[in-house]
Amino acid sequence: MINKESLTHHISQQFNAELEEVRSHLLAMGGLVEKQVNDAVTALIEADSGLAQQVREVDEQINQMERNIDEECVRILARRQPAASDLRLIISISKSVIDLERIGDESTKIARRAIQLCEEGESPRGYVEVRHIGDQVRNMVRDALDAFARFDADLALSVAQYDKTIDREYKTALRELVTYMMEDPRSISRVLSVIWALRSLERIGDHARNISELVIYLVRGTDVRHMGLKRMKAEVQGTSDDEAESANVPGQADDK
Amino acid sequence: MINKESLTHHISQQFNAELEEVRSHLLAMGGLVEKQVNDAVTALIEADSGLAQQVREVDEQINQMERNIDEECVRILARRQPAASDLRLIISISKSVIDLERIGDESTKIARRAIQLCEEGESPRGYVEVRHIGDQVRNMVRDALDAFARFDADLALSVAQYDKTIDREYKTALRELVTYMMEDPRSISRVLSVIWALRSLERIGDHARNISELVIYLVRGTDVRHMGLKRMKAEVQGTSDDEAESANVPGQADDK
Repeated sequence: MINKESLTHHISQQFNAELEEVRSHLLAMGGLVEKQVNDAVTALIEADSGLAQQVREVDEQINQMERNIDEECVRILARRQPAASDLRLIISISKSVIDLERIGDESTKIARRAIQLCEEGESPRGYVEVRHIGDQVRNMVRDALDAFARFDADLALSVAQYDKTIDREYKTALRELVTYMMEDPRSISRVLSVIWALRSLERIGDHARNISELVIYLVRGTDVRHMGLKRMKAEVQGTSDDEAESANVPGQADDK
Repeated sequence: MINKESLTHHISQQFNAELEEVRSHLLAMGGLVEKQVNDAVTALIEADSGLAQQVREVDEQINQMERNIDEECVRILARRQPAASDLRLIISISKSVIDLERIGDESTKIARRAIQLCEEGESPRGYVEVRHIGDQVRNMVRDALDAFARFDADLALSVAQYDKTIDREYKTALRELVTYMMEDPRSISRVLSVIWALRSLERIGDHARNISELVIYLVRGTDVRHMGLKRMKAEVQGTSDDEAESANVPGQADDK
């Protein structure tokens, strides 16, 4: 199992420093992406087109961070030829940046919807849902990054589990907004803007889940993608499938 | 520059065989994904819930292919410690599978919409657009994979350029469908299903573009993401930015 100590006891001090550096760059990118999610949601709710514009501009920084981290990973692969947990770290980082960059993209899309709503007038519905789901997916992104920082597979598991809650709340919100549009067709265009924003938030939840699956791969060495939450839980907690099954109280996956 | 010949003249015959094998696995996964896009669109247009169900079932195969290719890439990285163009090949493959898997996911989403439309009754509008944009993005996926198979940066560039056309047609279709919903609010739920399908197709175009950018990285060694089409073209064709600028006839990026 990998942990922070195993990382700091590396044979080559220089190699060790490089691994630590690229990891810290990932976390810095993650911090900025988390802020983008928050700013985009705030811009939409408070009809702040200045803030929305800022989100769109910061996106270029995030793209640049992705490029830089990718270059670092390629350099380490080429020069250091990492193996075992070092290799898993590089792979996890080079895949996580893709998800972080896409979370940045989704934030930009939300910002674009915010600007549109500033121009068209506010939607009659949906802001409560945007705030609520927005808060939750931002927490997922933060927890996924914390799990990465601390090599914490249990925290990563809870992020993956929480994605189910987001999916359910997103669907509920969608149903209500569709009903509203049928009652007030003149609002369709504005309500749709909110629906697109909610869709982006739901996608951000998916990306946070992807990152948390990479953390589990990093820490446990197991590829848990597409595995289903029950088996994933068994992998993380080191129990057999049968034990996980019996321990899986209905609805538990939704608690946090 | 990398090409098929440089790949087949490798020092280690065994290493060479491994690289060729993982590349052929990627292309096989791509072939299946391309078929999924086509089947999902057909299922939606022809209201064929059996075919839609089949798309959903095949998705598990695609997920398994992603896992297998990822394992192959990690094994090659750990044992062969590839450098230069071999390393770029492994990186391009391990990133392309992510996009292929997501194209598979989007196809599954379209299939789910097809099933929903079979239950709710067909949408009064939008099928022409789904067929038209569906054909185009399927061609993009096929061309991106052909570009990968042939190390063809020019073909990859044309895929990336074509994504602009998809984005424009998607927006036009969306505007028309929103107008239609306002005229006939009872159709909102069904028209929205078509809109979600179009959205998935637009995303598939984005993923095909991502793969084509990875082909350019593989062949030219340059990271062209977020670069803008003008600069990307200059990179691929080996001209300077200024030359590319003057050669860039307005609207040209949309030709194919």
